[in-house]
Amino acid sequence: MSTADLGLPVDVPSTALFTDQYELTMLQAALRAGTAERRSVFEVFTRRLPEGRRYGVVAGTGRVLDAVENFRFDEDVLRFLRERAIVGEDTLEWLAGYRFSGDIWGYPEGEVYFPGSPIMRVEGSFAECVLLETVILSILNHDSAIAAAASRMTSAAGDRPLIEMGARRTHELAAVAAARAAYVGGFASTSDLAAGFRYGIPTVGTSAHAFTLLHDRERDAFRAQVDSMGRGTTLLVDTYDVAEAVRTAVEVAGPELGAVRIDSGDLLLVAHRVRQQLDELGATGTRIIVTSDLDEYAIASLAAAPVDAYGVGTQLVTGSGHPTASMVYKLVARAASEDPKAPLVAVAKKSSGGKTSIGGRKWAARRLDAYGVAEAEVVGTGPVPAQLVDRQLLVELVKGGEVVAREPLDAVRERHIAARAGLPMSATQLSRGDAVIPTEYATEG
Amino acid sequence: MSTADLGLPVDVPSTALFTDQYELTMLQAALRAGTAERRSVFEVFTRRLPEGRRYGVVAGTGRVLDAVENFRFDEDVLRFLRERAIVGEDTLEWLAGYRFSGDIWGYPEGEVYFPGSPIMRVEGSFAECVLLETVILSILNHDSAIAAAASRMTSAAGDRPLIEMGARRTHELAAVAAARAAYVGGFASTSDLAAGFRYGIPTVGTSAHAFTLLHDRERDAFRAQVDSMGRGTTLLVDTYDVAEAVRTAVEVAGPELGAVRIDSGDLLLVAHRVRQQLDELGATGTRIIVTSDLDEYAIASLAAAPVDAYGVGTQLVTGSGHPTASMVYKLVARAASEDPKAPLVAVAKKSSGGKTSIGGRKWAARRLDAYGVAEAEVVGTGPVPAQLVDRQLLVELVKGGEVVAREPLDAVRERHIAARAGLPMSATQLSRGDAVIPTEYATEG
Repeated sequence: MSTADLGLPVDVPSTALFTDQYELTMLQAALRAGTAERRSVFEVFTRRLPEGRRYGVVAGTGRVLDAVENFRFDEDVLRFLRERAIVGEDTLEWLAGYRFSGDIWGYPEGEVYFPGSPIMRVEGSFAECVLLETVILSILNHDSAIAAAASRMTSAAGDRPLIEMGARRTHELAAVAAARAAYVGGFASTSDLAAGFRYGIPTVGTSAHAFTLLHDRERDAFRAQVDSMGRGTTLLVDTYDVAEAVRTAVEVAGPELGAVRIDSGDLLLVAHRVRQQLDELGATGTRIIVTSDLDEYAIASLAAAPVDAYGVGTQLVTGSGHPTASMVYKLVARAASEDPKAPLVAVAKKSSGGKTSIGGRKWAARRLDAYGVAEAEVVGTGPVPAQLVDRQLLVELVKGGEVVAREPLDAVRERHIAARAGLPMSATQLSRGDAVIPTEYATEG
Repeated sequence: MSTADLGLPVDVPSTALFTDQYELTMLQAALRAGTAERRSVFEVFTRRLPEGRRYGVVAGTGRVLDAVENFRFDEDVLRFLRERAIVGEDTLEWLAGYRFSGDIWGYPEGEVYFPGSPIMRVEGSFAECVLLETVILSILNHDSAIAAAASRMTSAAGDRPLIEMGARRTHELAAVAAARAAYVGGFASTSDLAAGFRYGIPTVGTSAHAFTLLHDRERDAFRAQVDSMGRGTTLLVDTYDVAEAVRTAVEVAGPELGAVRIDSGDLLLVAHRVRQQLDELGATGTRIIVTSDLDEYAIASLAAAPVDAYGVGTQLVTGSGHPTASMVYKLVARAASEDPKAPLVAVAKKSSGGKTSIGGRKWAARRLDAYGVAEAEVVGTGPVPAQLVDRQLLVELVKGGEVVAREPLDAVRERHIAARAGLPMSATQLSRGDAVIPTEYATEG
């Protein structure tokens, strides 16, 4: 299933230009030097988690598979590259026939990760793998940053549902991916219709202050909304005076009123007052939804308040202070020569400045303690120790160019909840700290 | 010119679903209540600049015009809304004929703004205007955040060119918009091919560490690159030992070598050493390009270093700490009744919590001092004072549904440089401070 099958407004005919120019110039130089076909292994990993974070969340894998499948150089794209003289005719000819034919393994989407985790491994010729760097990183860096924030928020919210409503705070298509990543991280629904259309995520929405202001009286607005959407709707009660609005809301909708939304003020205080007022009015089943620059800390601080659901916007789509993960895509091994049977040689940048990488094609496992709780991320090259064979984290995603691991988003979401539950309890503390489990290296030689 | 004319990979058939669900449920309730056709004025503004910032930069206006033009509900979209029962048949029928027929005025793209500046004003029926809220805010909030960061970086860089290379750190389509916003903010070029394709921005790129690691010796990699791209190329010299690499680079390419790139280490120190070494080798014309987690502060700190160009990634596409602007889209005036001749009534939310707005349809002007330097942003309702008539900031963008103000991106870029130059000199200080000019309100009554 390619994105093009879905007839959606986020279709792109090709993902081939979501690429830094240097991928193409490297390709050309390697083609001309005769090194382009050397078998190569690239890995996606991060050297560190965002400051203070205890774990990361892999998100975007499904979108990467779509992007790889749609990575083709059509006529329009080739004409652009020719006109700009970005590469020559020899390279353009090679690109015209491009189709990724290698293998991709990776952490399954929704899994947690740590510094050094080989989140994705791309294998094939240097030429076919190097081209995918930019788009793979764009997707994983963005989506994983959002999912990590979402996971902290859902953890802080406990059983209360979270609504993603940040579309207006980020690029209109990033918003669709953000709603998807939030769902992976445990959010219940989104305000973004495109995310509902594209990914089947439940969508919700009722009204804004503008709707109240459009009408001559707040009562007229509430009446119009209840007439249109029924008594189960959510009325926004903070346009003028909250207590007055709650009284009017229950008069108009009756005690069957579905919910009220509070979008400003001291939410803790206001929620308590509104709950008491609703109960006194007999609207004991009417829920309270709060929305107003919430983040995981604000959500946690409302744990004891009579709040039934949270709407989160800005802080979700901006990754709650960390809008991007710092994943990189590095060549870790390549064939010793152009001979297809040549052995792989581990390679790594050696220079100073904290950017040193560990070479070699890696496996990864999560070691558990006697109680079944994760105690270390073990990353290694060479043979897998027997006791870690059944704890391997990488799964096959693309085999010989064919996507082999599509899965429904609900399965991804459930995997994340399970993976998070398998971490030490301190993983979900909001206080700053190091990665909740260490990364150990089990390298050859 | 619609985006669809360009045959590019960032086309979307419609922008109508980049919309929060509540826009549609408000529409339906208003249609049923008979208030949907009330003439309305919505304004985009921000209550505050990001903490410490001295000015904002309007960016994304051109993309808003595309989005408004492509905001249509086609069959696939209508089927989705029907299947999800988001609105009823009466509303679906109205949406099928939707086309914005109102007027949009706004600050021209590239202009600077301050708290309260009416950055965009959308006028028409409530129904047609309310639907545009989400997509307009998505675009302006994202693009303006990036352009503001870009402007600080180009100001810090002085005459040295800046290369945008953050595609891998943000959503793949946000990256295209980010490259565009960076160009508006004064960047010279981008690594993102899609941004070159879509917006004609100059693209650049040469090679990454993977290219050096692919080859058996650094010398082989340099030779391959020079053979492919010529002596004017940029060689990356920090894969192993920088001094050794610089020596090899000049041996391979000769003193005509275009540039070397340094991507790690203490850039200040390394740049000095590399410059001295290049000069000693006779490569006095070879430029030094630095790239490594740069932001405006790092750029400023390299002002005295022998650096010829900067590449900026993460900090650009994440808005250098402020990945979104906090613009809102508020109903500020609406007709007193359904009568097309009914007068406008100013409206505003009255509740607590710092979210109070100022009602009324606004004009804005920038008052200059005796030296022609901006001294205040004046925002008013009602008649414009005579001395501010020729300093009006809002221009007509859409008239009766037709886009009337398309312009080339280079004109936008030049406007930004001029607008920034018209601010007090402290505008470009990097130290934290308040808005560099105050916003004054000249309201009626």
